[in-house]
Amino acid sequence: MLSVHIADSHVSLRRAPRPLPKPGYALIRLLVGGICNTDIELLRGYYGFAGRPGHEFVGVVEAPADSKWLGKTVVGEINLGCGKCERCAAGLERHCARRTVLGIVKHPGAFAEYLTLPERNLYAVPRGVPIEHAVFTEPIAAACEILDQVKIAQGAEVAVLGDGKLGLLCAQVLQAHGASVQLYGRHAEKLRIAAGTGCATSLGERGLPARAYDTVVEATGSAAGFASAIRMTRPRGTIVAKSTVHGNVEVDMARVIVDEITVVGSRCGRFAPALQLLRSGKLRLDGMISAEYPLSEAEAAFAKAQERGVIKVLLRP
Amino acid sequence: MLSVHIADSHVSLRRAPRPLPKPGYALIRLLVGGICNTDIELLRGYYGFAGRPGHEFVGVVEAPADSKWLGKTVVGEINLGCGKCERCAAGLERHCARRTVLGIVKHPGAFAEYLTLPERNLYAVPRGVPIEHAVFTEPIAAACEILDQVKIAQGAEVAVLGDGKLGLLCAQVLQAHGASVQLYGRHAEKLRIAAGTGCATSLGERGLPARAYDTVVEATGSAAGFASAIRMTRPRGTIVAKSTVHGNVEVDMARVIVDEITVVGSRCGRFAPALQLLRSGKLRLDGMISAEYPLSEAEAAFAKAQERGVIKVLLRP
Repeated sequence: MLSVHIADSHVSLRRAPRPLPKPGYALIRLLVGGICNTDIELLRGYYGFAGRPGHEFVGVVEAPADSKWLGKTVVGEINLGCGKCERCAAGLERHCARRTVLGIVKHPGAFAEYLTLPERNLYAVPRGVPIEHAVFTEPIAAACEILDQVKIAQGAEVAVLGDGKLGLLCAQVLQAHGASVQLYGRHAEKLRIAAGTGCATSLGERGLPARAYDTVVEATGSAAGFASAIRMTRPRGTIVAKSTVHGNVEVDMARVIVDEITVVGSRCGRFAPALQLLRSGKLRLDGMISAEYPLSEAEAAFAKAQERGVIKVLLRP
Repeated sequence: MLSVHIADSHVSLRRAPRPLPKPGYALIRLLVGGICNTDIELLRGYYGFAGRPGHEFVGVVEAPADSKWLGKTVVGEINLGCGKCERCAAGLERHCARRTVLGIVKHPGAFAEYLTLPERNLYAVPRGVPIEHAVFTEPIAAACEILDQVKIAQGAEVAVLGDGKLGLLCAQVLQAHGASVQLYGRHAEKLRIAAGTGCATSLGERGLPARAYDTVVEATGSAAGFASAIRMTRPRGTIVAKSTVHGNVEVDMARVIVDEITVVGSRCGRFAPALQLLRSGKLRLDGMISAEYPLSEAEAAFAKAQERGVIKVLLRP
């Protein structure tokens, strides 16, 4: 089968044997995959990664023959817990110390004609949700994670910083939840997507309001964004830190302490609420798809995904 | 009256007129004051402070003549809110944007023969609590603030980093609350004080356990301490940041996000729980008093408070 390979900051194609699912695992034929910022970071060498990337996908289960998933269109949670530890027992496989992660840590990714995942990781794509939307399940779940961690009341004013993929989804998810979202970004055309779901938007980095929000979601991917988040948060307010910034970030801890700000690190989330939101039709995803490529043009797809102004790039077998 | 003055990194004595309390304010005769790290930071010029320091005190109310506090031995909350804003209405004067702060921000401090404070800031020292213990009310309240912000279950293992004044009080307060505290410090003689209240202790900076605690209290006052706190916290765990570090602190935000760590900035607290704890007799404070000086020797007292190994230095009129 055709498989995408990343090593030494380079994307290449390989012929690989179709994987044999271990007991408890499903063989999944890829329908569509999405390139995430993490994939670009893997390519850039931040994690010393070499292997097959891809963790946003929709596929059809083709084996084993006796699987209850056979023939079903599925998405899958990307963290594979050990299944034995305290955290796995608590449903927190995504914090299992021995986890592997689809396309990121020691489990071959979804950018190939076939992939495998434990059946317990699978979720059926709800009827009526197109696969081009379902492929957003994983990043939507990451946005929904905010609601699992922080109490956000109906009508609460929330600032989201950053109009990249994650910022746009966080804004839409919180707006759909009932918050009153103000999205701060740098691209008028991206802000328009969030505006379509009712978010208020602000273009540019000037005049960010000081001590103005009880909840600020930082999704800019930059250290400067985190500094802005601190300045924009009210005393006793909360910053949700969504975007991984590499290396150390300089933080004005004195302000965090004096204003008793809470900073909540936030990563992956549960798929169930994300699928429910997808079914609700409240999200605007079409405008977020910038381009599609066949797997065989993965190198061009990764190049496109790194262009300014581009949001989501999809891959199809 | 005799008054201590700080300006240009220098402690001096002044003769000042006895203050006239405004309506709603009490005139308080100082019985004993305590030198806090913040006072030392004021002296070192971190805040461009010039004026009379002192915010840890016990005193006797001497005016106005019709005050219900007259003749009472009191301590007092140090934040003076505007009394009109949303935060003051919510009992959060200590986050009022227009607050003044006793001995810190635009309200003359307690290191003088007399001071004034709004009567609503006063609390009677409970019967049986010696004034040398009651003078710790403010920093004990700061330690109690942790329990107002973070849920800590009975028997929960909590690490406290730093065996300075604040670390020792945090450790004692959390142990008295029912947590199982492990205090990490650098001074055997200081650790012994906490051990006397049942805390387990660890001396030295080597071999700090990684991802070992759900709750870590950072009270070292150093950027390195915060980095240690991040390494010692379990996924989904909480770091309570107590000690103000000046300038920016380099934070491994990637770890905070991937492990979904929560960082809670924590400053001043309510006096009521602190006074209740003082009355309980569960805290060991005698060992924390390193020296006492008369107000007239304030310069020597400040010098002593900056010596290595010294914990609390008291001032008496």
